[in-house]
Amino acid sequence: MTIYNFSAGPAVLPKAVLETAQSEMLDYKSSGMSVMELSHRSSLFEEIIQTAENLLRELMAIPDNYKVLFLQGGASLQFTMVPLNLAQGKKALYVNTGSWSKKAISAAKALDNVEVEVIASSEDKNFTYIPEIPKTIDQNAAYVHITTNNTIEGTAFEKIPSFGKVPVVADMSSNILANDYKVEDFGLIYAGAQKNIGPAGLTVVIVREDLLNKKAIFAPMLDYALQAKNNSLYNTPPTYGIYIAKLVFEWVKAQGGVAGITAEDRKKAQLLYDAIENSHLFKSPVEKKSRSITNIPFITGDEDLDKAFNQAALAQGFENLKGHRSVGGMRASLYNAFPIEGVEALIAFMEKFEKENGGE
Amino acid sequence: MTIYNFSAGPAVLPKAVLETAQSEMLDYKSSGMSVMELSHRSSLFEEIIQTAENLLRELMAIPDNYKVLFLQGGASLQFTMVPLNLAQGKKALYVNTGSWSKKAISAAKALDNVEVEVIASSEDKNFTYIPEIPKTIDQNAAYVHITTNNTIEGTAFEKIPSFGKVPVVADMSSNILANDYKVEDFGLIYAGAQKNIGPAGLTVVIVREDLLNKKAIFAPMLDYALQAKNNSLYNTPPTYGIYIAKLVFEWVKAQGGVAGITAEDRKKAQLLYDAIENSHLFKSPVEKKSRSITNIPFITGDEDLDKAFNQAALAQGFENLKGHRSVGGMRASLYNAFPIEGVEALIAFMEKFEKENGGE
Repeated sequence: MTIYNFSAGPAVLPKAVLETAQSEMLDYKSSGMSVMELSHRSSLFEEIIQTAENLLRELMAIPDNYKVLFLQGGASLQFTMVPLNLAQGKKALYVNTGSWSKKAISAAKALDNVEVEVIASSEDKNFTYIPEIPKTIDQNAAYVHITTNNTIEGTAFEKIPSFGKVPVVADMSSNILANDYKVEDFGLIYAGAQKNIGPAGLTVVIVREDLLNKKAIFAPMLDYALQAKNNSLYNTPPTYGIYIAKLVFEWVKAQGGVAGITAEDRKKAQLLYDAIENSHLFKSPVEKKSRSITNIPFITGDEDLDKAFNQAALAQGFENLKGHRSVGGMRASLYNAFPIEGVEALIAFMEKFEKENGGE
Repeated sequence: MTIYNFSAGPAVLPKAVLETAQSEMLDYKSSGMSVMELSHRSSLFEEIIQTAENLLRELMAIPDNYKVLFLQGGASLQFTMVPLNLAQGKKALYVNTGSWSKKAISAAKALDNVEVEVIASSEDKNFTYIPEIPKTIDQNAAYVHITTNNTIEGTAFEKIPSFGKVPVVADMSSNILANDYKVEDFGLIYAGAQKNIGPAGLTVVIVREDLLNKKAIFAPMLDYALQAKNNSLYNTPPTYGIYIAKLVFEWVKAQGGVAGITAEDRKKAQLLYDAIENSHLFKSPVEKKSRSITNIPFITGDEDLDKAFNQAALAQGFENLKGHRSVGGMRASLYNAFPIEGVEALIAFMEKFEKENGGE
């Protein structure tokens, strides 16, 4: 049975990447050592981290005045680090588009000397759309925070709105390397690796140099400027995760870079959205113009039927299709490494299920 | 050429562990998925993290009133988390035994409402010994912090001193699972994984339940109680690192557990210390009764000769023998997975070098 892994993260990785990791597991480049065994100060590892950074710069066309950091703690630690480094004694603006935005807002509010203002929200309709941004926002704010893709709710910013001169900080965890955003439209981008980059436990931060904190943060590990000064080697970084990320970046490049991979991503998403639109059983809970091409929730409208579908799908090798508990139903996460054959197989299965369950 | 990896961390891993990881890389237990691709909420991963915890509890005889946490950020983040969670508005005592102790002290001092007192130090002699602990220490202190093994300086606490009723917090990064300490003698133990546990990017924390913070910490990711309540799954943990740790714990158990492995560790260390004692060229910079069995520095007393030795050793496949820049000379890190054959080969090489360089 072929397994298709629709997990929202940690998620499917390119098979070619896993094969390389497998073949190099006991002996990296004739060193007689595994990458896991390399000192982070060794020339072999220095080459890995530098190549990873160079590839990411190339893939995302990151300008020279941005630093690339490889950190730990996931997006959840960034929820705290962003306001701690960028907004002490200042106002920070947030757009509330879902569960992860809410966590980011709550972490910023927990800081004593940061003033938080939510300037737009789609909570009124259970986050099923991307809200309009007010025409005028406080131009003295430290930043405005957006979640570019909402993993749980299945919405995404197709274009980045204009916020005037306020730097945009983006949680791009679930659609980094799967969009045509321009890095120069952001002040800071962060992403947990476990969707489009590599294994859990690695966090990528891309930050414009002029936004780096001038004053030291009380905790060295939470200090962007210190991490940047040390090229992510202030302490031992998650070396194996960075190695896998490097392999994934090489793979993305071989797929035609971000342009090539997003073309394929759009094709995969279109197939599934078309199938949902043409179905009399399944529907999308998300407003058409706000739909993510990465995480695609769908429902029957009947909880028991959703459950039956999920059970039957699992038995056919469709793993992790069950929707997040806050949304219910199903969710297909179609990250870069998810194969188009898996989408076609899912659609065929949905059609069969629909016929067997009163559809036509 | 056989490669022997003396790296202080990330360090050598058991070959059997790497072989298992290699064979399971593309298909973990017939799931059709790599461990890196498993959802952290899946039953397969839940079994991995639970087994890892159970094995560690068994190996270290961790009492039931201690929580085991799998976190991120390394010991460096613990330097901040320990005082943040345990000592706000209180006094914290520190024993200064080297570079890592100093970083821990400095991180605690950086917190506004923690009073730091260094109760003993061996800085006067470049940390070449473990200092005596004063007979009377403040019994109202939140904790006393020690570094059980000093990776850079090559010293270790052979026994844990008595501190009365003050809970002992230990940075055990470099000798966890390589000593016969009793967990009940500690209030909290933390260790970066990249020496005796697994890959970099995973941090193990063992904490007595009554010491868990009662008040929430401003940052969820820095909050022990929250992490404990969520069984280390507040956000996505470093799943692959936890999987490798589980394999390492299984391997340690197969070696006769901690008793079996420390007997072997003592044998390896004794061989090298005897060779150093018998040499007219090499000597240990560390006081005899304070010597670590894990990290063993040695010097010739002549920087040029040290350099020549390091170069010749590297050419023979002895990797990462160069001492830390603050100590100089050489350092052999003999973690659990380091084979005794590597120690014997090193000693033979040292004898040959000594003969060729004016020894007898």
